[in-house]
Amino acid sequence: MPPPSAAAAQDSLRAGGRAPLAARFAQVRAHTLALAAPLSPEDQCVQSMPDASPTKWHLAHTTWFFEAVVLAAHRPGYQPYDPRWFHLFNSYYEALGQRHPRAQRGLLTRPSLDEVHAYRRHVEAQVHALVEEADEAAWRAVEPLLELGLHHEQQHQELLLTDILHALSCNPLLPAYARNEAPSLRLAAPQAPLRWITGPEGAVEIGHAGEAFAFDNETPRHRTWLQPYRIADRLVSCGDFADFIADGGYRQPALWLSDGWAMVQAQQWRAPAYWIAPDDFRAPAAGWQVFGLRGVQPLDRDAPVMQLSFYEAAAYAEWAGARLPTEQEWEAAYGLPGLQQMTGQAWQWTRSSYDPYPGFRPWRGAVAEYNGKFMVGQIVLRGSSLATPEGHARPTYRNFFPPAARWQFSGLRLARDGAC
Amino acid sequence: MPPPSAAAAQDSLRAGGRAPLAARFAQVRAHTLALAAPLSPEDQCVQSMPDASPTKWHLAHTTWFFEAVVLAAHRPGYQPYDPRWFHLFNSYYEALGQRHPRAQRGLLTRPSLDEVHAYRRHVEAQVHALVEEADEAAWRAVEPLLELGLHHEQQHQELLLTDILHALSCNPLLPAYARNEAPSLRLAAPQAPLRWITGPEGAVEIGHAGEAFAFDNETPRHRTWLQPYRIADRLVSCGDFADFIADGGYRQPALWLSDGWAMVQAQQWRAPAYWIAPDDFRAPAAGWQVFGLRGVQPLDRDAPVMQLSFYEAAAYAEWAGARLPTEQEWEAAYGLPGLQQMTGQAWQWTRSSYDPYPGFRPWRGAVAEYNGKFMVGQIVLRGSSLATPEGHARPTYRNFFPPAARWQFSGLRLARDGAC
Amino acid sequence: MPPPSAAAAQDSLRAGGRAPLAARFAQVRAHTLALAAPLSPEDQCVQSMPDASPTKWHLAHTTWFFEAVVLAAHRPGYQPYDPRWFHLFNSYYEALGQRHPRAQRGLLTRPSLDEVHAYRRHVEAQVHALVEEADEAAWRAVEPLLELGLHHEQQHQELLLTDILHALSCNPLLPAYARNEAPSLRLAAPQAPLRWITGPEGAVEIGHAGEAFAFDNETPRHRTWLQPYRIADRLVSCGDFADFIADGGYRQPALWLSDGWAMVQAQQWRAPAYWIAPDDFRAPAAGWQVFGLRGVQPLDRDAPVMQLSFYEAAAYAEWAGARLPTEQEWEAAYGLPGLQQMTGQAWQWTRSSYDPYPGFRPWRGAVAEYNGKFMVGQIVLRGSSLATPEGHARPTYRNFFPPAARWQFSGLRLARDGAC
Amino acid sequence: MPPPSAAAAQDSLRAGGRAPLAARFAQVRAHTLALAAPLSPEDQCVQSMPDASPTKWHLAHTTWFFEAVVLAAHRPGYQPYDPRWFHLFNSYYEALGQRHPRAQRGLLTRPSLDEVHAYRRHVEAQVHALVEEADEAAWRAVEPLLELGLHHEQQHQELLLTDILHALSCNPLLPAYARNEAPSLRLAAPQAPLRWITGPEGAVEIGHAGEAFAFDNETPRHRTWLQPYRIADRLVSCGDFADFIADGGYRQPALWLSDGWAMVQAQQWRAPAYWIAPDDFRAPAAGWQVFGLRGVQPLDRDAPVMQLSFYEAAAYAEWAGARLPTEQEWEAAYGLPGLQQMTGQAWQWTRSSYDPYPGFRPWRGAVAEYNGKFMVGQIVLRGSSLATPEGHARPTYRNFFPPAARWQFSGLRLARDGAC
Repeated sequence: MPPPSAAAAQDSLRAGGRAPLAARFAQVRAHTLALAAPLSPEDQCVQSMPDASPTKWHLAHTTWFFEAVVLAAHRPGYQPYDPRWFHLFNSYYEALGQRHPRAQRGLLTRPSLDEVHAYRRHVEAQVHALVEEADEAAWRAVEPLLELGLHHEQQHQELLLTDILHALSCNPLLPAYARNEAPSLRLAAPQAPLRWITGPEGAVEIGHAGEAFAFDNETPRHRTWLQPYRIADRLVSCGDFADFIADGGYRQPALWLSDGWAMVQAQQWRAPAYWIAPDDFRAPAAGWQVFGLRGVQPLDRDAPVMQLSFYEAAAYAEWAGARLPTEQEWEAAYGLPGLQQMTGQAWQWTRSSYDPYPGFRPWRGAVAEYNGKFMVGQIVLRGSSLATPEGHARPTYRNFFPPAARWQFSGLRLARDGAC
Repeated sequence: MPPPSAAAAQDSLRAGGRAPLAARFAQVRAHTLALAAPLSPEDQCVQSMPDASPTKWHLAHTTWFFEAVVLAAHRPGYQPYDPRWFHLFNSYYEALGQRHPRAQRGLLTRPSLDEVHAYRRHVEAQVHALVEEADEAAWRAVEPLLELGLHHEQQHQELLLTDILHALSCNPLLPAYARNEAPSLRLAAPQAPLRWITGPEGAVEIGHAGEAFAFDNETPRHRTWLQPYRIADRLVSCGDFADFIADGGYRQPALWLSDGWAMVQAQQWRAPAYWIAPDDFRAPAAGWQVFGLRGVQPLDRDAPVMQLSFYEAAAYAEWAGARLPTEQEWEAAYGLPGLQQMTGQAWQWTRSSYDPYPGFRPWRGAVAEYNGKFMVGQIVLRGSSLATPEGHARPTYRNFFPPAARWQFSGLRLARDGAC
Repeated sequence: MPPPSAAAAQDSLRAGGRAPLAARFAQVRAHTLALAAPLSPEDQCVQSMPDASPTKWHLAHTTWFFEAVVLAAHRPGYQPYDPRWFHLFNSYYEALGQRHPRAQRGLLTRPSLDEVHAYRRHVEAQVHALVEEADEAAWRAVEPLLELGLHHEQQHQELLLTDILHALSCNPLLPAYARNEAPSLRLAAPQAPLRWITGPEGAVEIGHAGEAFAFDNETPRHRTWLQPYRIADRLVSCGDFADFIADGGYRQPALWLSDGWAMVQAQQWRAPAYWIAPDDFRAPAAGWQVFGLRGVQPLDRDAPVMQLSFYEAAAYAEWAGARLPTEQEWEAAYGLPGLQQMTGQAWQWTRSSYDPYPGFRPWRGAVAEYNGKFMVGQIVLRGSSLATPEGHARPTYRNFFPPAARWQFSGLRLARDGAC
Repeated sequence: MPPPSAAAAQDSLRAGGRAPLAARFAQVRAHTLALAAPLSPEDQCVQSMPDASPTKWHLAHTTWFFEAVVLAAHRPGYQPYDPRWFHLFNSYYEALGQRHPRAQRGLLTRPSLDEVHAYRRHVEAQVHALVEEADEAAWRAVEPLLELGLHHEQQHQELLLTDILHALSCNPLLPAYARNEAPSLRLAAPQAPLRWITGPEGAVEIGHAGEAFAFDNETPRHRTWLQPYRIADRLVSCGDFADFIADGGYRQPALWLSDGWAMVQAQQWRAPAYWIAPDDFRAPAAGWQVFGLRGVQPLDRDAPVMQLSFYEAAAYAEWAGARLPTEQEWEAAYGLPGLQQMTGQAWQWTRSSYDPYPGFRPWRGAVAEYNGKFMVGQIVLRGSSLATPEGHARPTYRNFFPPAARWQFSGLRLARDGAC
């Protein structure tokens, strides 16, 4: 996705007004259901840790978002589908009232999956009616909120996959999410040796500008100053990471940040989260295997390493005599010739804490809590993953997770000081 | 259930040999499925706390018990239905190999409910075949294990209900397990004032003897010595307990055991577990309500109080100027004229820690771990509850739970020193 | 201490009235200070776990007890030495007002040790004045409370030693409490093979009666019924226990109660609390060593094993093909010819939970909370230890600790069903 | 401390070679002892939370640093004073061997305070001998390590004060560290209304360069780009913060970062850590009071607010319609006319996560672990506090703590987007 054409394409998608937006709405909503389709009602109800949410909760919460942010505010006379569900499916919006405790989302066996499907259909019909019936003044207020709701739902599409994958990984039977996953989920070609590419230096501009959609945390576009650096042309592969393990990477404290080393010891980390050692009783084999959406597969040395924490990414970089790029370096390098795997494979941990951009202002109103209030204790990831929905990636996109998070499709790319 | 005839009836049930046992096997197994029938697959998968298990797990574990204890040992050539399930559905038998962690039973969305039903049918067919085909020597070994398996499954029938009730109680929607519960679940008649009945004193015999089935922890029958005492003719009612609350019972440390008072403060206990205060946002009402198998119902002052901990039972007794009976007193009083509600309403906390009887010997073999290894840190409950399966109660039955457990159908009966 | 003469001696000690009681008061108080004397101010301030208290806190709390229970109630016009200390040094008496959190006793660097010594002297002078000046009516109320205060202080004398020993055991330098401990702390003679002694059977009387001092939990004396049993003539020795370890006792779940096995795994228990393995970096040696009041010493195979939990005691008994005696059996056997080491060596875990005796009534008034409110979740120990003050042991004495406690001078004696 | 002259003064201090460095060594070491002098041995032993260390441990650890980093490496034939102390007083240097667990530093009643004093004298004598006897080549290696050791000890001088203050704050008696603290600890003059000062914009240089001492995390000096901003001329005062509290600042989630709001609720934060509400039982008064080194004092509205977390600082800024400055903005503004209270009052939370500077390289050798491995999950504070030793502050100094830390002398200064 080279930035100019991508932005153009996105603008054209967005340009058309009511009918195209309604069409995208229908398509995004249908895609969420398609992602859930391979899963049984039980699969869709389970919650494997407080940080992850049940599939059914994702289905309902993304619907609640349209109800709370669009319909309740802009559809005259709209009443909540069920007032009690209003707090069940609120995620973290303090301004929108009481919330069901995050760690107890898995206890919601009711409403049933069928009831949640009916809820989705009801809200969708109401949104379509609103699109048709809103007068022009209302439409100007509704359109950006609908747009936001779609991007919000796309974020949850990826989380739906990462969360159910975590749940399945906790089952000793290691069941597959889907057997016939698209072949695009792995690299076709063997990995060439890593090559370094010199990035721009001096004053560069970073961040989102223009009319196309972006989250508030990507703004404002602003100038920053880069020292000379180079960036790897490809992601770190599973083969690369297996070498790090074989060299004792998980046993050398000098490679690790202090908090990371504490996690290695406390959690007994020995490999990325879904790697399965040869002697694992759940799936004995001669070599490393990796659990993923297609179930247990032999380790593919050419595939990007994923499901690792920032701590592991930083330790690997130290071991490799390199470092992680900052998010500014990553964004400034985007689109350089020869740079591969920037999107569509694995989110890439950067060496940037998730701080506000200079001049950052959160959105106003109910969606003020969308991004800004999480700007502490998290690390920025850039790019996108194999699980990111089509059209959701942007060069300015700032994903973020705590440094210990390991259940995302998160990998890394190396960088170094100094031009080539 | 007066003791002599009950034992006789039980003996007659048991007496018949293969065909009657096979019939009881079929009936008990069918009853478990009937208890699960009102629940959706999601309901049957959820686990609301480490102490409670999912319905589906109960369905599978009771089946595993027959497989592990009966078929694997006594059916020539029997192979486990699925070797991986063997450790998934082991509860706590160290001798029978690795176990799935108790707190993670709710993560087992697979095997699916249909697959567990198929597992049940497979094992049932094998058991029936074994009953028919075993030679006499084998039958002598198999019969008591089958008998044990049926009682084991009946125990889990009650746990299935207490566990799903707890899960439903965690849902802010407070859904009912079943709307049309039998009217026998409540008392037909208003409660008369409590009357005291003098129990036997001096040397009495306690514990199980004879051929009828009993758990090992009820044996051996032995002599014990009772000081003069009297016992209440009925259970403490919800109305009694509401008076205790209204009198500040939960705010007076002098009424409580030290550990109990610590729980009151740490857990903010203000009433039995499933009582709903008038100002509760989940179900606003003018007075107390109680959540139960039929959903939320107005408090019935005549019904026995239930879902309280030993600590609350002991504090109530202290407040009432009485005490809890010991398990020896309870058993010795069983069958006295005028004594009501001894079984079929609520398990009754006693003032007896769960220690071994003099001369106690655990069963031998795989079932040695059934009872004995839990004989520390628990309190004995006597009687049976509205959720106890028909025919499962016995005057010598020793139920046990930790003193803080509140999700059982557990109530109390008062006692006092000295004859009337 | 054979029971009849001991009771007589105690009665005579007690008999004399004011002057002898004042003398005993002075002697007991002085002994507490003597026990603290080898310790620096820092040693006396430290708290190594919530269950243990600092030496300085013991010094102050035993003084507070006389202030709160005796002086405040019975010394006309008495004002607390410092009202703020009144809640600092309250242990668990809810009726006597707010308490300092138990786990934060080690933070009380102020008041200083010198200030606490001054507090002790002040209260002692007031008590002596009260003894002299109280009229007869007052004296009748004061005398039993003073008596109780002395026994209370003696209990804390032992706790002072067990608690400081635990604190010193947490220091990698393993400093000794005192180098020149009396030789009586170990057995002079090699252990003979264990012999069994038949205990009384049938109806026996248990519990305290008579005028001599006893705690409320030892009363009332009452009849109980014993089945035939035998009891070991001596304690289990360190040599015995080393054999259990060498035979893999800590690795066989079948020997353990369920909660005990969970502790073994969670806490990585491999030996009694203060045993030091040969490869321990703190004190390398060729064989087992044991940390105690005299510091690190080579394991003495003839000495009674100590500092173990009820779980370990019960597992050892299982391994030895025996069991622990009940507290009734222990008390009924007391004084039988040939029975050794009943007191003065190690407290002996029994197979009895700490339940109230039939007819038990707590003391009235402020001391009602002394014993009764702890009667759940604990196990009775009988006898006394090398750290128990002279004259504090009684055959009816009921010591109690949670089953996982390992920092007391706690050992075990075996028993078996059936007469010899 | 205006930057040019300060650097010059520091250079001149440093310039003189062996004798001046030895003199500074003696003076810094003596100052540490002087800070500990008001404290009893018990005070010096206590540890009030895992994040804080005992005074005695600070005394020993700063000594260990000279032993481990200077003497062991550069004094021929030097043997550790006590090999066992070597791991007792290591803080976090993995490369220097095993460490005593941080949370158990308070259990080290031995070695005694006198023994630690002797250890200090021994190491000091050895360091002085090394300074005199080292040949020129050795001196070139030793000098920067000695310099580092002095700055390390100065850091611990401030921690000694913050840690003992926390311990004293946990004592309900609220004892004062020292009654006669220098009057410089408070502001002499009433606070004028806050004024805004425009900072530099565009490309500015940040970080340390030159020969004077600085920590590795302050390097390299590098260019960065600032958007227009203004910065407050003074710190936020206690009076300002009292207005925030009175306006319900601790009850409005919209003001808080998400993690901060979770802390407010979980920890029941209602005011900065050492503020004492009027109804506090420990020190009843008509208005707010503040606990500090001089004990409990009435709130001084003109004094800078301190002992608050980053979360509280950020919430205050939000409430005030402002934000916190970034560390780059803070440093670039340093020395501007009119800017007050930049050092010597309170460390100032910035809006910058503690990330490495571009081109950052940790020191080599044993001191590599000094700073770099903590660069995640922490927030930068700038300036210095009333407890920072004379001569230890620098405009480029990067202090850092986790965002929830509240026991430091940490306050805040406001900033805003856009020039005045």
